[in-house]
Amino acid sequence: MAGGVGSRFWPMSTPECPKQFIDVLGVGKTLLQLTVDRFEGCIPKSNIWVVTSASYFDMVKGQLPFVADDHILLEPCMRNTAPCIAYVTWKIKSRYPDAVMAVTAADHLVIDTAEFKRVADKGLAFVAGNDRIMTLGMIPSRPETGYGYIKSNDVFVGEPLKVAEFKEKPDYETAVKYINEGKYYWNAGIFFWDVRTIEAALRANAADIAAVFDSLEQSLYTDREQEAVNAEFPTCRSISIDYAVMEKAPNVYVLPASFGWSDLGTWGSLHNQLDHDGQNNSSVGGNVKFVESSNCIVRMPEGKDVVIQGLDGYIVAESNGSLLICRLQDEQRIKEFSAKLK
Amino acid sequence: MAGGVGSRFWPMSTPECPKQFIDVLGVGKTLLQLTVDRFEGCIPKSNIWVVTSASYFDMVKGQLPFVADDHILLEPCMRNTAPCIAYVTWKIKSRYPDAVMAVTAADHLVIDTAEFKRVADKGLAFVAGNDRIMTLGMIPSRPETGYGYIKSNDVFVGEPLKVAEFKEKPDYETAVKYINEGKYYWNAGIFFWDVRTIEAALRANAADIAAVFDSLEQSLYTDREQEAVNAEFPTCRSISIDYAVMEKAPNVYVLPASFGWSDLGTWGSLHNQLDHDGQNNSSVGGNVKFVESSNCIVRMPEGKDVVIQGLDGYIVAESNGSLLICRLQDEQRIKEFSAKLK
Repeated sequence: MAGGVGSRFWPMSTPECPKQFIDVLGVGKTLLQLTVDRFEGCIPKSNIWVVTSASYFDMVKGQLPFVADDHILLEPCMRNTAPCIAYVTWKIKSRYPDAVMAVTAADHLVIDTAEFKRVADKGLAFVAGNDRIMTLGMIPSRPETGYGYIKSNDVFVGEPLKVAEFKEKPDYETAVKYINEGKYYWNAGIFFWDVRTIEAALRANAADIAAVFDSLEQSLYTDREQEAVNAEFPTCRSISIDYAVMEKAPNVYVLPASFGWSDLGTWGSLHNQLDHDGQNNSSVGGNVKFVESSNCIVRMPEGKDVVIQGLDGYIVAESNGSLLICRLQDEQRIKEFSAKLK
Repeated sequence: MAGGVGSRFWPMSTPECPKQFIDVLGVGKTLLQLTVDRFEGCIPKSNIWVVTSASYFDMVKGQLPFVADDHILLEPCMRNTAPCIAYVTWKIKSRYPDAVMAVTAADHLVIDTAEFKRVADKGLAFVAGNDRIMTLGMIPSRPETGYGYIKSNDVFVGEPLKVAEFKEKPDYETAVKYINEGKYYWNAGIFFWDVRTIEAALRANAADIAAVFDSLEQSLYTDREQEAVNAEFPTCRSISIDYAVMEKAPNVYVLPASFGWSDLGTWGSLHNQLDHDGQNNSSVGGNVKFVESSNCIVRMPEGKDVVIQGLDGYIVAESNGSLLICRLQDEQRIKEFSAKLK
């Protein structure tokens, strides 16, 4: 899933080039490329599918040249994850009815890719040929209020657990309670299922969305596909797969795991993932010198010389000819800040 | 005089392109061009002389194409204002022994150019054909500690006053005392004199420097001039015209004036000269939006989109691929900050 616009990472991320297409970490690969890489040895490259916005087709092809054109699905508009997953599910089921699927966002971070592969292999094996839906649950390292949680009443001994409940993003006190209880995992939005299972789950729990793709079935893999999708996809309601299916289906499992995951949803979460100097400053790109500064995250174009003096707790980010300086604590307002320039 | 390197205005000003060659105010002309413009109708353009560094010749020609090559004097190194003025004095006296001279820095600001012209005309008339040295004294508007002061014991009634004393940059209490006494004027470093007068004053008060240019006299206006200057100019001691001549000569006058002058010596002084929003923010260049910010000065390249949120009292300046963010109150340390990148 590579269709997001990454508005919370402005100006690094823009609607023209959102964060999944950017080398956010300064490691030489984009988040999309890193996402594909971490399935290496687990899923053949020829089995990679990308669902994205029509305007990002060229970037996907440029960054993943080995992905066939008909494996790049183009949404005419954003409708959250349920219609996105339904589209690729209907594509896959019509040609590969026995397929096992892994679903992930293209703009998240995984540090320990070996552990990720081990978990992904286990996940695929757990759902293959049966009627289980599996999601990965990150063993929480802190009372994070930026993630949803998954609760299981069972004890984790290395195997997937039956899900008891999905929980919205909690307030801080609730998050602390979750951590202390020990039965809660971060919902990372990484799913495993047999294509038959997710098709059935969509039919059972989101019949309206399933009906849209049933109506498109004759067009798939034809010259008429994009035109038909452009006409019908927008009629889907906008809803996440969590709301549409996961919270309703009876056969949902969570595999607790720990491989250094972040949704990189905010500058603060990126700041947490980067190396820091002694004053908790981090930077990506550029030649950045901190003087009497602390708790700052700086993202600059390559080759840019920067001196930052006397700042505590700020984002300083330049990209695409735009410069943002704002308090890290106010990063939830970045959309408002970027709108000032319009 | 256009030889300074403007290190206090980094990164806008760099040794490759110091502030006199920059449109610091965003008005469409560089400080050098504005300096020449303000003598229009007062001094013919063909009588303009520029003393600068050899490396700035092309910029001077580019910005003042009407200035003849032999009116652009190239210092091989910086030796402060006394050797600079001696050089142009010896050049002028050998061809134009009756000349009257006005001397000014090329990187200062004058707001009321009509009043400047009136004062300059008065100054030139006051010194022409006699043995007076005249300097302009800015009627102070505040107890500024960044300027030297000139004291006269006489009462200003519109005419030049005999100078009693030159004063170094004062501390704040002393500056307040000066303002209250009312006999003190800012030393703007703008001088008027007959070429014979300044030659004699240099011979009397800085004989070593006069001797250097006497030794060069045969080379002036020849193909050997630059080579000879390159060899001999560096042997001059580095000393200001104030120390070398003004404070010693007996015949020095000050003409109090008020035409909105600033030496633009610091980001703070530039900030004072620019238009401000309701929160005392000012910007030059770029498309700069301030959010919950105050007392900031921002200098950006044209066309750059910038949002600044949550800053109070900062310089944010980008130029030549370098970005500086620092506290305005720490601007005296800009040399230190720029050195971090070396």
